[in-house]
Amino acid sequence: MREARAAIEAANAKFSEAFARGDARALSGMYTPDAIAFPPDSEMIRGNEAIGEFWKATRDSGVRDATLTTIEVDRSGDVAYEVGKVSLTIQPAGKQPTTAVAKYVVVWKRQADGSWKLHRDIWNSLPATK
Amino acid sequence: MREARAAIEAANAKFSEAFARGDARALSGMYTPDAIAFPPDSEMIRGNEAIGEFWKATRDSGVRDATLTTIEVDRSGDVAYEVGKVSLTIQPAGKQPTTAVAKYVVVWKRQADGSWKLHRDIWNSLPATK
Repeated sequence: MREARAAIEAANAKFSEAFARGDARALSGMYTPDAIAFPPDSEMIRGNEAIGEFWKATRDSGVRDATLTTIEVDRSGDVAYEVGKVSLTIQPAGKQPTTAVAKYVVVWKRQADGSWKLHRDIWNSLPATK
Repeated sequence: MREARAAIEAANAKFSEAFARGDARALSGMYTPDAIAFPPDSEMIRGNEAIGEFWKATRDSGVRDATLTTIEVDRSGDVAYEVGKVSLTIQPAGKQPTTAVAKYVVVWKRQADGSWKLHRDIWNSLPATK
């Protein structure tokens, strides 16, 4: 269990770095080929390539960085689920930065090489902090 | 796998019935004691009793029914995750009914008696259908 959590937290740090760079290929590589992402107010996004492009488009729209905080990881065999929070710094061109916070559940799958990849990724907003 | 999916679809049918009745106790009993629900734009709701009350309050606010459609179930040991869609009929007192649709991921846990209970329950909106 502790091992899965450490691997997932390390993967999340890599995710944040790739997101900040707008690196669609690196982001795509963190998801399983048949991954699904579930953005609010959107249809499901199926497949790691489409998900990588989605995150790059999100980055390009002015979300400067995404900081992920793991709250729990529970594992059963090659499947683990993670609960966490994400803090986003949003700054469209020429505007002041604002912060948004969301909560998420990610289902991770352990790969044949022992690495963990995001397989189902869903989130929604937390109330704005005062 | 097929067995878990059948059990989960049967549990979802029970959920819809309990929801339509506004039966907080029955809804609460479908979740693990340490379950977490993740309503959009809200803090996490922790514990099956608080979740049962949340659904009853949702029912009382005018959400008449919730129809759940399972898209996939994948199981690893005593943990399964489900992807699905939910269709809500919303009719506050004195108003015309409208429909809202959402997508969800639920992490289910198999209990000692072989039943499956909702353990993590997160959803967000799908675009409005035209």
